[in-house]
Amino acid sequence: MKAITQTDENDPRSLALTEVDDPQLKSGEVLVKVHAAGVNRGDILQAHGNYPPPPGASEIIGLECSGTIADPGDTGREEGEEVACLLAGGGYGEYVAVPEGQLMPLPEGYSLTEAASVVEVACTVWSNLGMLAGLREGQTVLIHGGGGGIGTFAIQLCKALGATVAVTAGSDEKLETCRELGADILVNYKEQDFAQELKGRCDVILDIIGAKYLKQNLRALNTDGQLVIIGLQGGVKTEINLGALLPRRLSVRGTTLRARSLESKADVVRSTVEHVWPMLADGRVRHHIHATLPLADAARAHELLDSGEVTGKIVLEA
Amino acid sequence: MKAITQTDENDPRSLALTEVDDPQLKSGEVLVKVHAAGVNRGDILQAHGNYPPPPGASEIIGLECSGTIADPGDTGREEGEEVACLLAGGGYGEYVAVPEGQLMPLPEGYSLTEAASVVEVACTVWSNLGMLAGLREGQTVLIHGGGGGIGTFAIQLCKALGATVAVTAGSDEKLETCRELGADILVNYKEQDFAQELKGRCDVILDIIGAKYLKQNLRALNTDGQLVIIGLQGGVKTEINLGALLPRRLSVRGTTLRARSLESKADVVRSTVEHVWPMLADGRVRHHIHATLPLADAARAHELLDSGEVTGKIVLEA
Ligand SMILES: NC(=O)c1ccc[n+]([C@@H]2O[C@H](COP(=O)([O-])OP(=O)(O)OC[C@H]3O[C@@H](n4cnc5c(N)ncnc54)[C@H](OP(=O)(O)O)[C@@H]3O)[C@@H](O)[C@H]2O)c1
Ligand SMILES: NC(=O)c1ccc[n+]([C@@H]2O[C@H](COP(=O)([O-])OP(=O)(O)OC[C@H]3O[C@@H](n4cnc5c(N)ncnc54)[C@H](OP(=O)(O)O)[C@@H]3O)[C@@H](O)[C@H]2O)c1
Repeated sequence: MKAITQTDENDPRSLALTEVDDPQLKSGEVLVKVHAAGVNRGDILQAHGNYPPPPGASEIIGLECSGTIADPGDTGREEGEEVACLLAGGGYGEYVAVPEGQLMPLPEGYSLTEAASVVEVACTVWSNLGMLAGLREGQTVLIHGGGGGIGTFAIQLCKALGATVAVTAGSDEKLETCRELGADILVNYKEQDFAQELKGRCDVILDIIGAKYLKQNLRALNTDGQLVIIGLQGGVKTEINLGALLPRRLSVRGTTLRARSLESKADVVRSTVEHVWPMLADGRVRHHIHATLPLADAARAHELLDSGEVTGKIVLEA
Repeated sequence: MKAITQTDENDPRSLALTEVDDPQLKSGEVLVKVHAAGVNRGDILQAHGNYPPPPGASEIIGLECSGTIADPGDTGREEGEEVACLLAGGGYGEYVAVPEGQLMPLPEGYSLTEAASVVEVACTVWSNLGMLAGLREGQTVLIHGGGGGIGTFAIQLCKALGATVAVTAGSDEKLETCRELGADILVNYKEQDFAQELKGRCDVILDIIGAKYLKQNLRALNTDGQLVIIGLQGGVKTEINLGALLPRRLSVRGTTLRARSLESKADVVRSTVEHVWPMLADGRVRHHIHATLPLADAARAHELLDSGEVTGKIVLEA
């Protein structure tokens, strides 16, 4: 089959469509003929050699896709069924092997291309804010990078849950986008100290910065508050004052979706379809596709995402 | 009334029975005539000036007691009812004002003196391992300081929940006590590195050390593991590698019982009576009183607890 591979391992943009071996099905997997693959920040990190696939996963880039079942293997699924897929890798190929637990129906009213744009972000946001932190109506949540792929989705999902939503972003344009999506409290992190603005008010924080924001995040948390770290764009190591956790009963938690076991991914997928797919179906949460490019243009897609000018998703079509 | 007060604020052992004002009842409080008061490490910290009572609480030392209701105030309770009480302070007095939500029945089969010895430790252990961490059958828990007041209670409670219990302690005598109480894995922290012994195996850790153990605790945690810090005997500030949290989905949480709001304390008390009192009634969890002294001997009680030779509780009787 054809797939995007990196022709020069020292050049993260050397992404070309080449001939590779077909995926081999293991028990419990189906073969999916890929229609479209979503582009994620993790894809760029992987091309830079900073986010290697977990052991046993495809070396091909791509954390989500949509398509049709070409070979149901031993799963009893139907050939030709349209599916959206959460992947440990392999989305940027003509075919991909997918554990049955990572198959999802298309959200009601969604095309295959649209479906490929929401899988990874929906599973990431729901597994952290819904399943782990248990965000509830009436609580206040802070979403860092509100204008990003994770951020724009999280704002809408949190509003659908009935939360008050605070966001940070680096420009007034991005903050205006956040406001249109429902954000209640807007903080330009280049001009304001979010910890000062939100001191003691946040029940949950979804953080993509890590070390650089730890101290401020703890200040911004309310009693029983939970800091959930899913990105480390601001570094990994820093000092922590554990004395700040005890009297206000704070929690610092970190997760990644990709490193989860098959069982744990299946749990996330099941819960996301149950709780988030209805929000997509009735429009409480809307996807936003910034651009659709042919799979062969993967390098251009990465360039575009890296430019920082993108609001919404880039999707590659086979 | 009479109560223990500190006659010299620079001498933590200047504890004498003196004449003080009677407590004034607020709405929702009852006046309890104290029969017995448990002695806790927090009492010693308070005498050293390191653990001030929360705003509005009694300045008198004492975090738990038992007694009879002398004045039900506006609560509709019965005068003469025997109760055990979780206190923000005031246990070392003849009378104490107690919010109704912090009253508990005596555990079945318990004397008033016995009841005074289990309130604080039961609420602390249950609120952290049961309510916060949700420890379940089949999980592995590590309890630091297994031979201490918290530790000896926690071992039994965790066994009653069906967990595998690992402990640390500083002597083989204390470890033998832990083994008799049901501990499955014994680590002498003066001779072994607990992180090495337990690497990746602990679903929950109940920690009383803080900074000094943070790195090792994170190494000892299993995927989805939770470190719950309730004491900072090993310091408050240290470096944290947030990169260690994400792939294994670890959580670092801290709590104190005393700083909780009235509402939150009432929740803890309710849940503790529901889940832990039956374990006391049928002997799955046993209390152990090391010594009973008259209230006037509070200084001697503190000396005894500070000696490190105590296994089990010291109780002061009015
Ligand atoms: N753990 C997981 O399972 C998981 C899954 C998916 C994604 N992620 C991580 O989540 C992060 C976001 O992913 P994404 O797809 O949303 O990327 P994205 O679209 O590039 O969004 C990142 C956003 O962060 C903003 N930002 C940068 N520095 C900031 C700062 N100091 N304070 C506040 N905001 C800042 C950026 O815009 P402005 O600076 O212009 O505002 C941008 O909007 C990435 O680090 C990704 O690796 C983790
Ligand atoms: N946050 C809360 O709500 C709350 C409530 C109650 C108590 N606490 C805290 O919990 C801690 C324990 O209370 P406690 O009443 O059980 O006190 P305790 O009876 O004095 O027990 C402390 C135990 O820790 C052991 N220990 C000391 N250093 C250690 C180390 N480096 N590693 C492992 N074990 C070590 C000690 O014995 P060996 O060294 O001889 O083994 C001792 O058995 C205290 O710090 C207290 O302030 C917190």
